[in-house]
Amino acid sequence: MSGTQDLPVVLIHRLPAFNLLFKSRFYTHFTLLNPPLDSPDSIHSFLSLHAASIRALIAVGPTPVNSHTLDLLPALEIVVCSSAGIDHVDLCECRRRGVLVTNAGNAFSEDVADYSVALLIDVLRRVSAGNRFVRAGLWSQHGSYPLGSKLGGKRVGIVGLGSIGSEVAKRLAAFGCSIAYTSRKKKSAVSYPFYENVHDLAIDSNVLIVCCALTDQTRHMIDKEVMTALGKEGVIVNVGRGALIDEKELVQSLLRGEVGGAGLDVYENEPYVSEELFTLDNVVLSLHLSVMTPESFEALQDVLIGNLLAFFSNKPLLSPVQLD
Amino acid sequence: MSGTQDLPVVLIHRLPAFNLLFKSRFYTHFTLLNPPLDSPDSIHSFLSLHAASIRALIAVGPTPVNSHTLDLLPALEIVVCSSAGIDHVDLCECRRRGVLVTNAGNAFSEDVADYSVALLIDVLRRVSAGNRFVRAGLWSQHGSYPLGSKLGGKRVGIVGLGSIGSEVAKRLAAFGCSIAYTSRKKKSAVSYPFYENVHDLAIDSNVLIVCCALTDQTRHMIDKEVMTALGKEGVIVNVGRGALIDEKELVQSLLRGEVGGAGLDVYENEPYVSEELFTLDNVVLSLHLSVMTPESFEALQDVLIGNLLAFFSNKPLLSPVQLD
Repeated sequence: MSGTQDLPVVLIHRLPAFNLLFKSRFYTHFTLLNPPLDSPDSIHSFLSLHAASIRALIAVGPTPVNSHTLDLLPALEIVVCSSAGIDHVDLCECRRRGVLVTNAGNAFSEDVADYSVALLIDVLRRVSAGNRFVRAGLWSQHGSYPLGSKLGGKRVGIVGLGSIGSEVAKRLAAFGCSIAYTSRKKKSAVSYPFYENVHDLAIDSNVLIVCCALTDQTRHMIDKEVMTALGKEGVIVNVGRGALIDEKELVQSLLRGEVGGAGLDVYENEPYVSEELFTLDNVVLSLHLSVMTPESFEALQDVLIGNLLAFFSNKPLLSPVQLD
Repeated sequence: MSGTQDLPVVLIHRLPAFNLLFKSRFYTHFTLLNPPLDSPDSIHSFLSLHAASIRALIAVGPTPVNSHTLDLLPALEIVVCSSAGIDHVDLCECRRRGVLVTNAGNAFSEDVADYSVALLIDVLRRVSAGNRFVRAGLWSQHGSYPLGSKLGGKRVGIVGLGSIGSEVAKRLAAFGCSIAYTSRKKKSAVSYPFYENVHDLAIDSNVLIVCCALTDQTRHMIDKEVMTALGKEGVIVNVGRGALIDEKELVQSLLRGEVGGAGLDVYENEPYVSEELFTLDNVVLSLHLSVMTPESFEALQDVLIGNLLAFFSNKPLLSPVQLD
């Protein structure tokens, strides 16, 4: 007889504000442990009961996985993340302890790419601003409205040509944009011009789409100098992580008209968004929802299950994160 | 000696609310006559002076060209329209009098296509609604936000596969949508499935992009039955003309949740927009600005000049409108 007690045990590790609705197919493969979240004490007593048997953990959203987390779980062998970006995981500490890490792989790439295109056209063509104008009943009072700017012909610099960046490039090429990119290294499989650094890319671009991983090397890579290089007609779209941009500088540059516009899905200090931006029509503000579709979450469950099944049967992981 | 008096004369015909900034290259080819717009009387006395010499007219935006206009201009031979849609021109009357008509050709097609894609992603992924949510300071108060719907995989029905519709199809294919269309006749040059009528197209579509010409045959073609066929998850984007949709029915269907959402750039009674729509998050409202970029207007001037030069030198017109 096979009961749920025979299924591999997986710990759900999550902040109270972040949850995942695990589909039934999850429960046919794993026993999910959901610690009570009412207080640190109750989590600790839960873990003291189960920690010795926990080899796998699902880190939900931006829930931190740090040395403290790892101390509590001495038997842990794998951290399966539900996000594409894994800046909330202490990768050095995982490597040191021999703990594997996986991310969401390509589960979100198409949705994030779609969203970044929508943010870009919105900023260039004033879609949200126009919507606001109509809803305020202003159309019949004011005959004219400022012109937008055409997407076709724009030189788009993609910051990080991973799976999201590649999907962005494919879409924007269909609009007649020219594509260039910067990335940790040149990709031999693509013909888009490669730039060694984001500053040089910005000089030659009308638009930057920021969709790389947040690491110590990429933190604040879009700084004052890059904004100046992009210029006062330039548009920045960020669907990566807030801290890829020096947000304080960006806000000032936007307020002073030194950058042409911005479409932002992510921020340095979410859910805090600088209220100074609320007055600007050339800024589109979103709430970290570029991945938020049922289709993405379906694809995510497949990636999570796939990685866990591979781990428990000693097969190659679907979306391992390189720890070196 | 060649002075401006030798240049062909072209009358600017416009409603006070609609104007075009004619580029200097216009004035190297033509003498533009700009009637005073302060009163019908002053227009009439202006025309009584000039009408006999006016062979060509530029109709700006939706300025009507009807039998009354044509009566005033007995020497008129061509109406050069600054818009893609020409529902404001009485084509029967032009044909009867042997007056040629041209439209904006492809000048706006890419910008309108871009805008229709932005409206579609906005409705599906709640971009403007999210922007509004953030600007209202609600993100930090409310943890969760409704999911959007993925663009990829959507079955998109294009209503009118002319130059705009073709550009829409090219773009949405890059997002992984499947494309089908209805049009006056099947296009042999494309492989997208063709539907004889919009009702059958709606049955098989998740999205309708409406971008055909407004004629007696297409007025209110998106009626209650088509909306029902599209279904309550279906999205309608209109970048054609307001009257292609039975707007009263659309508003009711949206309010009752019988249609999934709408992205509207045009309305039956512009600039009037039904205020009942202002409360809906699944509706994106724009103000007939899908063509509004400096790039479009540059391209438009080329088309206007090209048509006028062709007319005055008896060469084939660039973008003639079929009058039969």
